[in-house]
Amino acid sequence: MISKPKVEVCFTPNLFPLYAEDFEVVVVIDVLRATSAICTAFHHGVEKIIPVSTLQEAKEYKNKGFHVAAERKGKIVDGFDYGNSPLSYRNDKLKGETLVLTTTNGTKAINIAKDIEHLLIGSLLNLNAICKYLTDLNKSVLILGSGWQNKFCLEDSICAGAISENLLQTNNFESFNDSTIAAKYLYLSARTNFFGYLKASSHRKRLKKLNLNEDIKYCLTANQTDVVPYREDYYLKKLS
Amino acid sequence: MISKPKVEVCFTPNLFPLYAEDFEVVVVIDVLRATSAICTAFHHGVEKIIPVSTLQEAKEYKNKGFHVAAERKGKIVDGFDYGNSPLSYRNDKLKGETLVLTTTNGTKAINIAKDIEHLLIGSLLNLNAICKYLTDLNKSVLILGSGWQNKFCLEDSICAGAISENLLQTNNFESFNDSTIAAKYLYLSARTNFFGYLKASSHRKRLKKLNLNEDIKYCLTANQTDVVPYREDYYLKKLS
Repeated sequence: MISKPKVEVCFTPNLFPLYAEDFEVVVVIDVLRATSAICTAFHHGVEKIIPVSTLQEAKEYKNKGFHVAAERKGKIVDGFDYGNSPLSYRNDKLKGETLVLTTTNGTKAINIAKDIEHLLIGSLLNLNAICKYLTDLNKSVLILGSGWQNKFCLEDSICAGAISENLLQTNNFESFNDSTIAAKYLYLSARTNFFGYLKASSHRKRLKKLNLNEDIKYCLTANQTDVVPYREDYYLKKLS
Repeated sequence: MISKPKVEVCFTPNLFPLYAEDFEVVVVIDVLRATSAICTAFHHGVEKIIPVSTLQEAKEYKNKGFHVAAERKGKIVDGFDYGNSPLSYRNDKLKGETLVLTTTNGTKAINIAKDIEHLLIGSLLNLNAICKYLTDLNKSVLILGSGWQNKFCLEDSICAGAISENLLQTNNFESFNDSTIAAKYLYLSARTNFFGYLKASSHRKRLKKLNLNEDIKYCLTANQTDVVPYREDYYLKKLS
């Protein structure tokens, strides 16, 4: 009997080495807000995004004349023009341009998985699009949550659960992994009201303090774009 | 305003360093089956349990004439008399004796937290007893799941959620931690039927293959003992 491709969930980047060798396909998720920002930027015409892990790298790109976005602890870092608010990319200012991006958690997760053959960017915003792409690809998938400073994070786990549930429902995938079961359960409890469900979550509280409730509502509204960002060489592009 | 002690959940031992410095109290959980076996052994009169991480250490104790239990991948290791089946400790054979124990996940988690001032052993079997003890202690608590080879594991997370829910309900504790929220949600969905809920879990499947369904049912039945095992020096004792 030919076994089906599997879908597994890894809750935080520092658990990634336990899973990495079994997968050619990794979907990185940072719902609040890096991967939501990336999907939004591509949707509005950004050509390439270069994810970098450190502020030092971001500064070097800035000195070379790139558009550079840098976020730490929810805020735009001094000296940079953009942070990781998806709302700041909902316009045509960067159409056709390259953007360099560094964030507290998301870009680190992207770079930790950089040697994987198919590295994709997922969020609730492109949920159906990424699931359709993964179903067509028909290979085992690891969904990697960015977490918060390497700790488990609720919104990424719920999004991982949404992708898992969607893929398993097609009956083309299978899972033997407890974190996938947990993520699915969390998604199924949360799906009628993501915003209410996340009320107590540490990240929602953190962003609410920064007056970012509009960002949160936007990031938690599924299926606003069909873009599927993927890694090509050292940058991200969108599948066309 | 004086803040309350907090309750947090760490899903696997290799995330423990991210949490360790904030806590004087750690409850180690390995529902299937190390911490369930420890609670059962103390309930039936075992005097001390020495948790060791490696088979080599276990052999050295055996050569010195100790009673030694050794489990790997769900089975008793050749050459040892006991594994980690709680049912094998439901008798008076080891009353007043010292037992040396090594298991795939549980004893490693215990030893990773060995420098913590108050290291306690939790399971569903001693759920109310451990919660009562923690409430009286009134200090911040980290609940550490043993996981499966450092990956997230469903039954430990549900037990962590049961302890969290119980402590938070007293209103003497607070939590700002996403893994605590997730564990609580998982427990609340599971609590009317742990056995059914865990049907798909990897560990239940693993043990079922080994004909250990009776062990699983026993381990998932809450509040069968009042013992609270704790670390004293290099061994575990039960609070009297």
